[in-house]
Amino acid sequence: MTRPASAAIAVYDTTLRDGAQREGLSLSLEDKLRIAHCLDRLGVKFIEGGWPGANPKDVQFFWELQQRPLQQAEVVAFCSTRRPGQIAGEDELLKALLAAGTTWVTIFGKSWDLHVVEGLKTSLDENLVMISDSIAYLRTCDRRVIYDAEHWFDGYLANPDYALQTLAAAIEAGAEWIVLCDTNGGCLPHQISEIVAAVLDRFPSLAPDQTGPQLGIHTHNDSETAVANAIAAVQAGARMVHGTINGYGERCGNANLCSVIPNLQLKLGYDCVETEQLMQLTATSRLVSEIVNLAPDDHAAYVGQSAFAHKGGIHVSAVERNPLTYEHIRPEQVGNLRRIVISEQSGLSNVLAKARSFGLDLQRNDPACRDLLARLKELESQGYQFEAAEASFDLLMREATGDRPHFFDLKDFHVHCSKQRQELNALATVKVAVTGRDILESAEGNGPVSALDAALRKAIGSFYPAVMQFHLSDYKVRILDGAAGTSAKTRVLVESSNGSQRWSTVGVSGNIIEASYQAVVEGIEYGLLLQQQAPLQAAEKP
Amino acid sequence: MTRPASAAIAVYDTTLRDGAQREGLSLSLEDKLRIAHCLDRLGVKFIEGGWPGANPKDVQFFWELQQRPLQQAEVVAFCSTRRPGQIAGEDELLKALLAAGTTWVTIFGKSWDLHVVEGLKTSLDENLVMISDSIAYLRTCDRRVIYDAEHWFDGYLANPDYALQTLAAAIEAGAEWIVLCDTNGGCLPHQISEIVAAVLDRFPSLAPDQTGPQLGIHTHNDSETAVANAIAAVQAGARMVHGTINGYGERCGNANLCSVIPNLQLKLGYDCVETEQLMQLTATSRLVSEIVNLAPDDHAAYVGQSAFAHKGGIHVSAVERNPLTYEHIRPEQVGNLRRIVISEQSGLSNVLAKARSFGLDLQRNDPACRDLLARLKELESQGYQFEAAEASFDLLMREATGDRPHFFDLKDFHVHCSKQRQELNALATVKVAVTGRDILESAEGNGPVSALDAALRKAIGSFYPAVMQFHLSDYKVRILDGAAGTSAKTRVLVESSNGSQRWSTVGVSGNIIEASYQAVVEGIEYGLLLQQQAPLQAAEKP
Repeated sequence: MTRPASAAIAVYDTTLRDGAQREGLSLSLEDKLRIAHCLDRLGVKFIEGGWPGANPKDVQFFWELQQRPLQQAEVVAFCSTRRPGQIAGEDELLKALLAAGTTWVTIFGKSWDLHVVEGLKTSLDENLVMISDSIAYLRTCDRRVIYDAEHWFDGYLANPDYALQTLAAAIEAGAEWIVLCDTNGGCLPHQISEIVAAVLDRFPSLAPDQTGPQLGIHTHNDSETAVANAIAAVQAGARMVHGTINGYGERCGNANLCSVIPNLQLKLGYDCVETEQLMQLTATSRLVSEIVNLAPDDHAAYVGQSAFAHKGGIHVSAVERNPLTYEHIRPEQVGNLRRIVISEQSGLSNVLAKARSFGLDLQRNDPACRDLLARLKELESQGYQFEAAEASFDLLMREATGDRPHFFDLKDFHVHCSKQRQELNALATVKVAVTGRDILESAEGNGPVSALDAALRKAIGSFYPAVMQFHLSDYKVRILDGAAGTSAKTRVLVESSNGSQRWSTVGVSGNIIEASYQAVVEGIEYGLLLQQQAPLQAAEKP
Repeated sequence: MTRPASAAIAVYDTTLRDGAQREGLSLSLEDKLRIAHCLDRLGVKFIEGGWPGANPKDVQFFWELQQRPLQQAEVVAFCSTRRPGQIAGEDELLKALLAAGTTWVTIFGKSWDLHVVEGLKTSLDENLVMISDSIAYLRTCDRRVIYDAEHWFDGYLANPDYALQTLAAAIEAGAEWIVLCDTNGGCLPHQISEIVAAVLDRFPSLAPDQTGPQLGIHTHNDSETAVANAIAAVQAGARMVHGTINGYGERCGNANLCSVIPNLQLKLGYDCVETEQLMQLTATSRLVSEIVNLAPDDHAAYVGQSAFAHKGGIHVSAVERNPLTYEHIRPEQVGNLRRIVISEQSGLSNVLAKARSFGLDLQRNDPACRDLLARLKELESQGYQFEAAEASFDLLMREATGDRPHFFDLKDFHVHCSKQRQELNALATVKVAVTGRDILESAEGNGPVSALDAALRKAIGSFYPAVMQFHLSDYKVRILDGAAGTSAKTRVLVESSNGSQRWSTVGVSGNIIEASYQAVVEGIEYGLLLQQQAPLQAAEKP
């Protein structure tokens, strides 16, 4: 890895503005503040907070942030250029922008002649004046200006001369950063490289080794190349990169900073954030997905739960001996973890590695180990799958080593669901034995599984009051042999929670109710185990 | 767009082999066969079906496929080179490979010296002989050979001379395609370009304008650049691209063919599939995600539900006036739709288009059309989804146009499941009215849904004897709001069959039994409708 001569990259996060354009994502003021502080800890240089002229919630965000200031990041307010035919100092949008009280502002203007004429319905000359006027006015108000050249690449392809004139206007008016935007997300990396080079050819003073204004890049993922496009621009000379956490954004999203940052820093030698801050990347990704209430993508590059997951026997022993033969980076560098997946193809070394990750030191020649492997293979042939049910796997290991505590015995269950005169009912009755005593309890629920869960917790609640804090937090069903329809085997995965920890269990049966009950029972059992023991690391694992 | 001189790209799909390595994805034999036929319709050139030596299910897949042959794609069996120190003709893995009976086979071998010594624990020379022996033997057995150079890019960076020797061995032994694999997914596009150029420099006969063996590329998404990497390789001279539908694959997945194909074809002028086949891309993506029971990514490039979604007034009128100002391609080119968020207009044309696909010629100003749209929006907001439940959608349309036949009225149902002394029971009782008469019937089943299905068919069987031929052929469950656990809404998809036709229906409820019953009831109703009418084409649609 050769370190580039001028290696500092200004990371510009727009999760709170462009990211919030994602369909289905909505942020409260408190959400925005939490995310801003989280980005600040990650070490991004700029945080685009919103468009104060267009959204009253965004105005409040900037005010609140003055009460709870960031440690190191610059918060940036976003706005368009002034409107056609107006005076910059009298434009309402620019007034609102100034009222946000930030040092830095981002102004976006049109680069594509077609959008000027058809969208703004003004002349090409007036658009140039709008750009320079707005920036010059903001400079007189002591603002530092980032200029977003909207639709830059499409505009350049349509009319390169005019597009370059818009940049000249922004540079001359005093913008410190000129950001080339692939607004429609249609570019491929080679186009980005060529066009950034053409810009530097026209404006050599924007080159990274010059003092004065610098180039930035803003890409979208409509061609699934947003990350590669951002990198191509940096390699061609851009020194600011726009993106969002987890790639959130309109349509197919923006460039994903969770991939852009480690690619630039670990693979190309650029400086984006501190080494210790990079180790916060996985936590940042997951916290943001939690705050915006979107399920994290387990298969995300660098930060996904499966990003460093390994299957298969030989493979696993090799990865433990020399991780870089099977991993492109060390997962710790981005705060992620290696995971050994237990699957059909598992060998003994997988089981041993997995046991170690649960703090159990099984020996290869320990008979418990062979028993465990045999039991595992038998269960897997019945359709059990432990990849996503680590709590069930832990119980299985404890069973093999004689270390599984015994909280209760299951006896019978009955579930009754009915619809009568349009009224739905679900009632469950369970019989369990605790310390030798049979207990019969019933409960109702929205459906059969919640009724069973409620009845079981009611039955054992007087012995183990902790179970009243447990709840089902996710429930997944998979039919194992599609061709056999409802008489096929059903695999149910249940995720349980005690408020602070979450764990997953599995059940398999030809009867969906029985499969669900197995998973629910193990969920409760594991919750009790966690309570009894020092909280296991494993339960907190993502 | 300049069309490259040699523009034909061999698309090589490995969803069924490498894609199936994705954590949480498991494919039944029937799933694999359905996906293979779906890929065949999409027009991919090669379909990698599995590793017959490593997995008995894969052997059966190849045999079954001989009974239901593909129209145009070549099915490929996958295997490693022979083992160290063995004779190729006696290697069990190669025997199993040959037993698959395919014309084309893919053999993977080691490129990275470290993996040869540490992984295979053999000498560098023996590895070269393993490659050439295995390929030469398969050639004598009349197989056409694709050679996957595993860990190629890392191997080349570690020891370029040795890595190139492995390719030389494969070329000399008669491989027709040399596929460079970024197995760990750590490369960035510029590295791919440079290394592919270096390979062509060493082996000029592999260039696209030469006759004889050609280069291929196989990339993984660990740096979130798999798609860009594949494109970089094609631009540098590769003419085969490996990938999977929806980018499924181990860890962070493989190159996503749903993005690679349109990028190459629509933006760079390469020929991957026919223009009409490309219009099947979105349907293929969604059907495959249904078959593997993974939620489709709404934000996926090209094929996602949000990929061409537009918000806001001005923007929307601009996009309707001149779509290419806000869209990088026309959504129809990949079979996707523009979605105007919060606009009845777009919904209406959608409904009209869908109705046409069922042979119903609804008019835009027909009041039935407005009613249908309103009902559809209401149902979708409750969690119904008709993408994969076209029979339910057809019933809905017939309802709006007054064309839905009335076979029976549902009254009550009761389902009882129990486990007593380890014995599982499932019993259902239904009350339905046929021609004004109430009928009460009960039946047992393996689980609650099969019991309900049996009871209902028993109840109406004396009026409609055809129902005794119907059966449930698939059953899928999805929880719509994961965060709320079992009290969340459940969507059930049921596939029914009458032996010659298959059709899918949907049900949604907070109670899984009720949701299942809805789907089962519509399944039986639709079967009767099919019987009554001339068999609808639509029923066979995926």
